[in-house]
Amino acid sequence: MSFKAINLQQKFDLFAEHWAPKVIAEMNDYQFKVVRLQGDFIWHDHKDTDDTFIVIEGNLRIDLRDGAVHVGPGEMFIVPKGVEHKPYAEKEVKLLLIEPRGVRNTGHEGVERTAPNDVWI
Amino acid sequence: MSFKAINLQQKFDLFAEHWAPKVIAEMNDYQFKVVRLQGDFIWHDHKDTDDTFIVIEGNLRIDLRDGAVHVGPGEMFIVPKGVEHKPYAEKEVKLLLIEPRGVRNTGHEGVERTAPNDVWI
Repeated sequence: MSFKAINLQQKFDLFAEHWAPKVIAEMNDYQFKVVRLQGDFIWHDHKDTDDTFIVIEGNLRIDLRDGAVHVGPGEMFIVPKGVEHKPYAEKEVKLLLIEPRGVRNTGHEGVERTAPNDVWI
Repeated sequence: MSFKAINLQQKFDLFAEHWAPKVIAEMNDYQFKVVRLQGDFIWHDHKDTDDTFIVIEGNLRIDLRDGAVHVGPGEMFIVPKGVEHKPYAEKEVKLLLIEPRGVRNTGHEGVERTAPNDVWI
């Protein structure tokens, strides 16, 4: 077996597009995804799972129906399953997402902003 | 509902002891734990789960039976289930661990180095 650590910054350097999560690792049936965000996303929820956001760079605002959470570098937030949320990044945010394999970025809606799933980098 | 981001550094500032993981969040049946490491741990494995290490500060070496992985700040490594490993930190390392609820830090051995489980901070 040959093992090597995964450098998050090196993974971010491999792509520039926004709102397109890339899988970098799997733990059991969960995936770690790097994603660059900028601007506004759509309201959505995930009926079957919590959704973990760890901000690596930038300042993320996660709008909820009854408020907003601000997540800065070195901070994390877990959106509970079924809770509607809308990520917003005034300036670019580099984010590490953790969620079960197969989770769609837009929740259960197949819409314009739905990104291809299970894209590894 | 009231929601707030979790600041990892603030959590580390709440304790000083080594090798005593503290739970800071849960995603479904997985837990996020902060832990300070220094020195040598014991060889162990986790028969039923992968084990995720994300280094926040310092340089971690994870010894494996056929080599070693070096994990620095902003890097992560997932030890596959059943793979024997021994963390080692020459200087103090601040680490974020992700593993299913109930995983014992020393694997399936109840030994001197086994830390209390499910301690929240």
